[in-house]
Amino acid sequence: MAKCSVVGIGPGDWREMTLRAVETLEASDAIVGYQLYIDLIRGRFPGKDFHATPMRGEAERCRLALALDRAGQRVAVICSGDAGVYGMAGLIYELRGEDAEVEVEVVGGLTAAVSGAALLGAPLGHDFAVVSLSDLLTPWEVIERRLECAAAGDFCVALYNPGSHKRRDALRRACEILLRHARADTVCGVARNIGRAGEATRLMTLAELRDCEADMFTTAFVGNSHTRVIGGKMITPRGYRNV
Amino acid sequence: MAKCSVVGIGPGDWREMTLRAVETLEASDAIVGYQLYIDLIRGRFPGKDFHATPMRGEAERCRLALALDRAGQRVAVICSGDAGVYGMAGLIYELRGEDAEVEVEVVGGLTAAVSGAALLGAPLGHDFAVVSLSDLLTPWEVIERRLECAAAGDFCVALYNPGSHKRRDALRRACEILLRHARADTVCGVARNIGRAGEATRLMTLAELRDCEADMFTTAFVGNSHTRVIGGKMITPRGYRNV
Repeated sequence: MAKCSVVGIGPGDWREMTLRAVETLEASDAIVGYQLYIDLIRGRFPGKDFHATPMRGEAERCRLALALDRAGQRVAVICSGDAGVYGMAGLIYELRGEDAEVEVEVVGGLTAAVSGAALLGAPLGHDFAVVSLSDLLTPWEVIERRLECAAAGDFCVALYNPGSHKRRDALRRACEILLRHARADTVCGVARNIGRAGEATRLMTLAELRDCEADMFTTAFVGNSHTRVIGGKMITPRGYRNV
Repeated sequence: MAKCSVVGIGPGDWREMTLRAVETLEASDAIVGYQLYIDLIRGRFPGKDFHATPMRGEAERCRLALALDRAGQRVAVICSGDAGVYGMAGLIYELRGEDAEVEVEVVGGLTAAVSGAALLGAPLGHDFAVVSLSDLLTPWEVIERRLECAAAGDFCVALYNPGSHKRRDALRRACEILLRHARADTVCGVARNIGRAGEATRLMTLAELRDCEADMFTTAFVGNSHTRVIGGKMITPRGYRNV
């Protein structure tokens, strides 16, 4: 039986992949993923069997990967960002179940919290929370409760999936919850198309973020009460005492 | 004026660095960092001027890097894990202040939440919080409040710096706070020496984690109420609905 690797390819720029991710893709026979991500890497890995599945076809994608593995192929399932953070790694393990015959490995990648933060400065320099605003798989009440707790704990927050054409008001509703605890002038930032064409960042206040238009290629960052703008960058100090 | 790059080198294994981190180090004249991390990469970058500073000498390290930069050198400051998450990126920006003459760039890396998770399975497959238990720069009351809120929000939690010889009881105290909201049999795991000699993982319950000995090379993971052990791995499902 061959090995099934779940590989985080980072934000999109080839150079943001780890050496291990590149080696793993080079060593694989088949590469399975969402069409958009397959397109991002296809040119770098000639001679591979690429299997693109549509968005939201996550379970189908994982079953295909496991089937190819059982057929003796060395398979890599690619995820944007990291393989585990809102990625396919958990689903592959769930679908494999207790079948130890399929060997699974997880190859980490730069998740948007890390790659977007690098563009904005250092917004996640202290304790932080990562919350997805997509209610596709999670009831909105759970998301709301998480936001409430993150704000109550004065966490820096990275917001994934802050909007789409179907969920135009998710970011506004999220910011309204955060504003119950955080000041309206809390330093915030957004990063769009990280590592891809059209990459852009913008700093703003939490009140401004509430009214910001966000799409599915945006990651939003909310500072904690100590986050400041220094030299045009969003900076959360590593601690509350002088160093 | 040259460029000053703050580079996350990942957990320790050379292969877990991004291509961009490798290129940045190759293009630099001087590499500044904590002795232990300099030792991890020194052999890979012959001909560089290495400047090792002691632990806790973070501000000194950053001032040295900025001074070398002003002297015309291409400088890289290395951080274990990511450059921003509890890293040097924020401090470099703080010390640079509004002096736009020094160009700073941040090159992200795999932080222990991501690299440790990959070893354990997929513990951070849904919303998560990252909390450092080090009270060196943060009052313990702030840490306590964050833990309380993370548990109240049913976040998965990655605990950084869970212990050292000076803070033997930090992990126990943290778990006691988490146990106010989370079940004693909540799935937990620890990863030690990620990407280095002696790498090891262990799964356990939250009650067991409370009594676990942890050192500064350990990262601990606490699941949310949906986290399960599947095929020997710690898995947090991506959502609460069937996929």
